[in-house]
Amino acid sequence: MPMLSAAELNVFLDRHFPQLLDEGQPLIVVESTGEMEAVLRLVEHDRHLRPGGTISGPAMFTLADVGLYATILAQIGPVGHAVTTSMSMNFMRKPPSGHLIARCKLFKLGTRLAVGEACLYPEGSDEMVAHATGTYSIPPRR
Amino acid sequence: MPMLSAAELNVFLDRHFPQLLDEGQPLIVVESTGEMEAVLRLVEHDRHLRPGGTISGPAMFTLADVGLYATILAQIGPVGHAVTTSMSMNFMRKPPSGHLIARCKLFKLGTRLAVGEACLYPEGSDEMVAHATGTYSIPPRR
Amino acid sequence: MPMLSAAELNVFLDRHFPQLLDEGQPLIVVESTGEMEAVLRLVEHDRHLRPGGTISGPAMFTLADVGLYATILAQIGPVGHAVTTSMSMNFMRKPPSGHLIARCKLFKLGTRLAVGEACLYPEGSDEMVAHATGTYSIPPRR
Amino acid sequence: MPMLSAAELNVFLDRHFPQLLDEGQPLIVVESTGEMEAVLRLVEHDRHLRPGGTISGPAMFTLADVGLYATILAQIGPVGHAVTTSMSMNFMRKPPSGHLIARCKLFKLGTRLAVGEACLYPEGSDEMVAHATGTYSIPPRR
Repeated sequence: MPMLSAAELNVFLDRHFPQLLDEGQPLIVVESTGEMEAVLRLVEHDRHLRPGGTISGPAMFTLADVGLYATILAQIGPVGHAVTTSMSMNFMRKPPSGHLIARCKLFKLGTRLAVGEACLYPEGSDEMVAHATGTYSIPPRR
Repeated sequence: MPMLSAAELNVFLDRHFPQLLDEGQPLIVVESTGEMEAVLRLVEHDRHLRPGGTISGPAMFTLADVGLYATILAQIGPVGHAVTTSMSMNFMRKPPSGHLIARCKLFKLGTRLAVGEACLYPEGSDEMVAHATGTYSIPPRR
Repeated sequence: MPMLSAAELNVFLDRHFPQLLDEGQPLIVVESTGEMEAVLRLVEHDRHLRPGGTISGPAMFTLADVGLYATILAQIGPVGHAVTTSMSMNFMRKPPSGHLIARCKLFKLGTRLAVGEACLYPEGSDEMVAHATGTYSIPPRR
Repeated sequence: MPMLSAAELNVFLDRHFPQLLDEGQPLIVVESTGEMEAVLRLVEHDRHLRPGGTISGPAMFTLADVGLYATILAQIGPVGHAVTTSMSMNFMRKPPSGHLIARCKLFKLGTRLAVGEACLYPEGSDEMVAHATGTYSIPPRR
């Protein structure tokens, strides 16, 4: 059982990451959390687009990064701050405009370091458009 | 000699990447271009911050990605669209709020693929806060 | 259906990659191939060890790289040479000495570029010790 | 001033990494060490080749990994074991057979984590054939 539900994480993100809000509406939403995993959604928005109507690389990076961060907090609770130490990302196909889904999974959740992947799909599609692996430094827990 | 100057690239970015503008002011500025290199600036802005007053990972990713893209266009001109195919990034230190500088360099500029690095520094510091290597697919040129 | 079976790939690797043989015995063996996937084994051998009796990073890299290469050939046949263009790898746990298994999966198999992952496990364990994502340039096929 | 010279590191590597020896001759040699940097050589050898007479990806990975490891030890001394936690590598050109040189530089040498790059060149050439960035976990020092 994860320590934080999707609803709890959404409250946490809204409060601590105001730059993920647009006029009070969240641009990234946690859909579900589970054992070592979580699903997030990048809400369709003009801000995410690049020329040609496709979703920009930085928007996909943001989804992957927030996704893995939320997946870690779902396991350990909202104590202290996990910090991204590395992210490696492959962009494979141009996603259409529309919602983008990140299925996040942790490979390792150690006392100092977490490692996981985020697989990005257009909503309703099973064709992966981008894949990220990230590492996060976890602050000491008491 | 690069094909595009910093001024020409700034005009190009303003026109084609409106999401890099905030109320008409650019959030990323090309400072200089050179043979296989360019320098860009991420302008200090609340939108880039994360809790604790440090610059967020996604803001640094955006600077590195736009930086390498601009470095490629500086060499080949604003013809067609280079597309990010991968980006690998290490975040080493928390940058203070303030301007962030990216020194970008291409390792390879082939007919199909470009590879380069972006080294990120707080303005006025020579202590690198993040390092990115990216690969870009280049469309056929006539 | 993959175009090449595990047995066919093993014959191909033995012939073209003699450095993967030790006194005529292969150090890496294809166990199975499938649609966009393959499983390979790094055979237990002193050459793979580093101080402390754990398997070295370069041995794990070799398994991931040969694994993804074999997975691509399993799909497109032994025509021409796919070339590794990038590899990003996270080492999460020290594997014990013994056989190491790579479960390889392709995310994309385009006409020019293939992208996939290799997940490495000690034989008989489901605890991943290392994860790699690789990109491969595919020569034109007639 | 680095704590270990090239000669001291070569003695250390020969003793602790016998798999880097071929019939008593080292396959990788430290050429020089400096402040946060080192230069290493991958000695020309059939074992490093792949079909077509070019140096294999795993051989280049080994050079980059041993290179960054040696660069770290040059700074902190041969105490305890640094462990590779990630490596991200771009292969840009096919190197000819012959010696391969790695110019290694550390971006960060913290108490827990080191980050650096290895730039690989054919001997006598200034055209980079591969670039690696690696992260290393450093055991507690007393």
